[in-house]
Amino acid sequence: MSIYLHDIPLPEARRRLQEALADAGLGGVLGTETIALDQNALGRVLATAIWADISSPHYHAAAMDGFAVRAEATATAHPASPVVLALDNAEGLDGARSARYVDTGDALPVWANAVVPIESVESLEADGQAAVDSRRAVSIRLRSAVIPWSHVRPLGEDIVETQLVLAAGRVLRPVDLGAIAAAGHDRVVVARKPRVAIVPTGTELVPIGSRPGPGSILEYNSLVLAAQVEAMGAEATRFPITGDDPEMISQAVRTAAEGHDLILLNAGSSAGAEDFSAGVIGRLGTVLVHGVAVRPGHPVILGMIDAAVRGALHAPRRTAPESDGGSAGLSKTTRATPIIGVPGYPVSAALTAEIFVEPVLAKWLGRSPAVADTITAELTRKITSPAGDEDYVRVALARVGAKLLASPLSRGAGVISSLVQADGMLVVPVGVEGIEAGEQVPIRLYRGAAEIEHTIFCIGSHDLSLDLIAAFLAESHVRFVSANVGSQAGLIALGRRNGHLAGSHLLDPQTGEYNISYIRHYMPGIPVRVVALAGRDQGLVVRPGNPLDLAGLLDIVGKRARFINRQNGAGTRVLLDYHLKLQGISPTSIHGYNDEEYTHLGVAAAVASGRADCGLAIAAAAQALRLDFIPLFRERYDLVIPLEHAHTDLLTPLLKLLHRKDFQEAVSMRQGYDVSIMGTVVLEDT
Amino acid sequence: MSIYLHDIPLPEARRRLQEALADAGLGGVLGTETIALDQNALGRVLATAIWADISSPHYHAAAMDGFAVRAEATATAHPASPVVLALDNAEGLDGARSARYVDTGDALPVWANAVVPIESVESLEADGQAAVDSRRAVSIRLRSAVIPWSHVRPLGEDIVETQLVLAAGRVLRPVDLGAIAAAGHDRVVVARKPRVAIVPTGTELVPIGSRPGPGSILEYNSLVLAAQVEAMGAEATRFPITGDDPEMISQAVRTAAEGHDLILLNAGSSAGAEDFSAGVIGRLGTVLVHGVAVRPGHPVILGMIDAAVRGALHAPRRTAPESDGGSAGLSKTTRATPIIGVPGYPVSAALTAEIFVEPVLAKWLGRSPAVADTITAELTRKITSPAGDEDYVRVALARVGAKLLASPLSRGAGVISSLVQADGMLVVPVGVEGIEAGEQVPIRLYRGAAEIEHTIFCIGSHDLSLDLIAAFLAESHVRFVSANVGSQAGLIALGRRNGHLAGSHLLDPQTGEYNISYIRHYMPGIPVRVVALAGRDQGLVVRPGNPLDLAGLLDIVGKRARFINRQNGAGTRVLLDYHLKLQGISPTSIHGYNDEEYTHLGVAAAVASGRADCGLAIAAAAQALRLDFIPLFRERYDLVIPLEHAHTDLLTPLLKLLHRKDFQEAVSMRQGYDVSIMGTVVLEDT
Repeated sequence: MSIYLHDIPLPEARRRLQEALADAGLGGVLGTETIALDQNALGRVLATAIWADISSPHYHAAAMDGFAVRAEATATAHPASPVVLALDNAEGLDGARSARYVDTGDALPVWANAVVPIESVESLEADGQAAVDSRRAVSIRLRSAVIPWSHVRPLGEDIVETQLVLAAGRVLRPVDLGAIAAAGHDRVVVARKPRVAIVPTGTELVPIGSRPGPGSILEYNSLVLAAQVEAMGAEATRFPITGDDPEMISQAVRTAAEGHDLILLNAGSSAGAEDFSAGVIGRLGTVLVHGVAVRPGHPVILGMIDAAVRGALHAPRRTAPESDGGSAGLSKTTRATPIIGVPGYPVSAALTAEIFVEPVLAKWLGRSPAVADTITAELTRKITSPAGDEDYVRVALARVGAKLLASPLSRGAGVISSLVQADGMLVVPVGVEGIEAGEQVPIRLYRGAAEIEHTIFCIGSHDLSLDLIAAFLAESHVRFVSANVGSQAGLIALGRRNGHLAGSHLLDPQTGEYNISYIRHYMPGIPVRVVALAGRDQGLVVRPGNPLDLAGLLDIVGKRARFINRQNGAGTRVLLDYHLKLQGISPTSIHGYNDEEYTHLGVAAAVASGRADCGLAIAAAAQALRLDFIPLFRERYDLVIPLEHAHTDLLTPLLKLLHRKDFQEAVSMRQGYDVSIMGTVVLEDT
Repeated sequence: MSIYLHDIPLPEARRRLQEALADAGLGGVLGTETIALDQNALGRVLATAIWADISSPHYHAAAMDGFAVRAEATATAHPASPVVLALDNAEGLDGARSARYVDTGDALPVWANAVVPIESVESLEADGQAAVDSRRAVSIRLRSAVIPWSHVRPLGEDIVETQLVLAAGRVLRPVDLGAIAAAGHDRVVVARKPRVAIVPTGTELVPIGSRPGPGSILEYNSLVLAAQVEAMGAEATRFPITGDDPEMISQAVRTAAEGHDLILLNAGSSAGAEDFSAGVIGRLGTVLVHGVAVRPGHPVILGMIDAAVRGALHAPRRTAPESDGGSAGLSKTTRATPIIGVPGYPVSAALTAEIFVEPVLAKWLGRSPAVADTITAELTRKITSPAGDEDYVRVALARVGAKLLASPLSRGAGVISSLVQADGMLVVPVGVEGIEAGEQVPIRLYRGAAEIEHTIFCIGSHDLSLDLIAAFLAESHVRFVSANVGSQAGLIALGRRNGHLAGSHLLDPQTGEYNISYIRHYMPGIPVRVVALAGRDQGLVVRPGNPLDLAGLLDIVGKRARFINRQNGAGTRVLLDYHLKLQGISPTSIHGYNDEEYTHLGVAAAVASGRADCGLAIAAAAQALRLDFIPLFRERYDLVIPLEHAHTDLLTPLLKLLHRKDFQEAVSMRQGYDVSIMGTVVLEDT
């Protein structure tokens, strides 16, 4: 409990690992194997360059169906004075006055140096008349001269014997396989796949598919790491879960070192009471690095396991039967095995694979390390960052008008959904403590820029039907990304042209009308179309059976119930304050008024967990977490769309969706929704 | 022989196929299957959306190693007046003055609402003194208040039960697997892989690995098509080669229709004497389209095979045992099977898969069709294009200074190496007959933009050692792309800043010096560094045994040998003209003086094939094609590098390479090279 991590800079951490690998004879391709081109060669990495064994074509080939001729024999041909060439299939002629029928791909006769396409000649019968049946033709008539080598694919047009076809290090694509075959090969020498052992540790871990109790955690990091490693071109072995016991972890590591090139030990890489990774690695070998200045993912360990401790019985390492042998002169049994202590949080674990595992596998495969394409985007929200770390901020991307927007996602290392939703990564360099909203920032892309163009970016209030919109629009391959910042922040964002639309349910206490006055206030001068999404019940979410017997807002005060509130600016918060005022209830009299959540489901979760007794939310949130719901108010939830986006190809599928019966039914199946108004245009500016 | 193709526009061809598929009940996902997350789920396409079954975390979890407390109990803590909380592990307390040790990930006690990190507290023993051994601690002392919910991952922080995790149509990535597992699933419903039969036809075809004779063609299209189809997410079955016999082709198609969702019939899709595809498809079903206005690849056939003719014995179609069933209500045995007649040229075949097969497979898998990212680049050479066609021009890309250059590759449909070298595709739309050099054009990318930045673009004279440079530089993951346009055109290109360097061997007949005067002429005002690559022998390439007994240029005239020349502007052409003049030989007296090739190997291939008796080229070219070589002149081959590129990170590996012993040895192993001058700086401007 007294060990603290001393984070070292990322480049230094990488350098130490690289040097240790080079010292262990593991600085390059681990070994090669020869495989048939049709034996899953796709995606493998060429270990040796491909030089052409034969030319392609390996003879002068007709490029059209037609007649092989000697061009010189046609030199005098004119429309008025045609040249007639005898059809002659005998070999050995000089072709001076001959022609021979050839199909595309046929070899030219030795005497020929051009092909006349079949549609450019007249076939003649013996009597000099046009041949009706081509089989009876004995000669052809040409009315224009033929350029030498026209309609011929000369020997070597594609590939010339001895030329370089592909350099080593190429990750084989489908057309590469064709070119290699065309150059006379049916086998290739590729880098053998590195073998990576993934060893999950932790007494609290349970396999996926279990129903975990409190304190138990589903072990899915090994699933993600294995898939990452395989996508990088290596083979992964997932070990069973090992409990937090140094001896058992030590044994698992020694077993993994036998027959694997790299070990990923997950987790226990930090410095807590049950973090045994560093100790185990130190006893079985060397800790090169413990703690790197990156976020998330700083408690990473880089180390080497001694060759001597490998395996349960110190057995010599097996050599894969298909291997052509290693690239270095060292005997395999004398090599140390690199090990990476991977942090336990899922985002940290996935980033560790990208940052540390990928470059090692690239070296071992002999290919270039992966380099993400980069795009420049405008940051929608200010972010802060620890100055000492390289900080990896996941962002969602969308094109709104002329702007490409980068919307920061959850920063939590435990929030794997932020990686799932991420279109790219903003890497905040060491020394930068924050970036203001509106700044142009470089984003490393996780998906193609083309895909990002098909993204509707909705910002504002959260509603469960937004998920249904996303699910339905996916059918038409439109991405619907929603940033749940609350109604007011959504309208402000639209005022800055930072979204295609906003979900909003802001009640104007003066008029009793929804949204319009807020739109005018927060989006001055921006014409909009406002479309009703649904009427929704808002009410009290309470534990099953409503144990405190709450019937309204007054009961919260009277029965001293612990309340969970929504954040300032949320439509639900406005609604609450409106009704508190109507009923003359002071916010300070509500226990938990300042305890905030950012979504309806967050409120419901707080009630379900016992953190609060009640909260104001929509019925669907209560239904989702099997809680009880006391309806209090019906409100209208609108979609606010700046006119400049309302009639674009991008948003058309969304607006059509609101009139689809199956979508309306899907929404109305959730408790507390009134879809009769769905799609109604509340306001359209001109 | 009398059938002519009527090319229809691409959008119309696509529309006809789509409609026919929809009519046959094949307009969407073919079927689904349920697979375990750890059962090769990576890359599969979600057929149903993933909604969360459980929240993640599913309890309030400690986010640090430390002590769970009730925040309110610490409200008065100040440095001068600390708060002491008793360590108490009993359940059921309200936690008013309690703390409990928790590891990261542990569930909070019901009464706790915050975690204090272990390093922020003092542990005390029973006597109130600091605990040396943490196991003897009985209480903790805090000197600052704790914010509620700090260092806690509240229930649902990542994923809330019932929320949408992933929409259908998602191609599963590694982190997606983690999020699905975190949401409580260990299985997913994915689209079943479409089954594609690839039927190669052609009497001239021989399997890869054979040594084909003249007129025989290596059959590798099925290899490329199978790899393409697999990369698109489907399963491919390669059928054996079928000869050009309508009955046999017909039988192969009927067999393929049994158990496959799509048939690719390759080739015979044109309208020649041995093109039986359209006839076979017409007899077994319907030809929807024969001929599409795209180049290369216009003789494509789109058709449907009737359900009734399927299989040798009209057996009912097998249903895959793992299938969850089809998406449509139609019985499978009543469905027609789409068939695509794929043109025979390899570039045409690969493009047909991209243009027609990919969108069909995308629909059947329920994912978005592939959309290439697009980049804007400057065209280096004028191109012409048939106005009626969509024309697919392969280009190599390189960044030279501020310019991104697109250099058109070979246009030939038979030149698969053009696809291998292609970094992208310029699609010239219908109605455009040509694009001038220097125009900015949109390029569909075949590789990441980042990779293109690491490309050295060499333009100019061809030399075999450029291939060796490319092979050696690949080790350092630098791409070396060379456009072989001849020495003079290379210098002109550098004068337009259209390359990083040029290979040149231009003799100045006035001074007997190489390159300098040409550089000044074609690259005015551009300072350069000129580095010698090698001395090379130029001489006569003749057939083995030198049957015409040629000893010099005069013999070409005297013995009436057929000569093959290099193109105007090539250094070898300049050298020839220089020596012809010296020896008083008139070019018109040389038979074949106007017959041109663009590379040394092209010249050698012309001699090897018997098209010419001799040509002037370097020894290496003769050696490569096992021809004889009569050395005549030694020349110097230089690399000309504009100073602005000479000292960049990009070119440094190249300049270092020239001094590497292993590289020099590799070059000198080729006949006729003198590497003693390699790397010598001939000229460096200031």
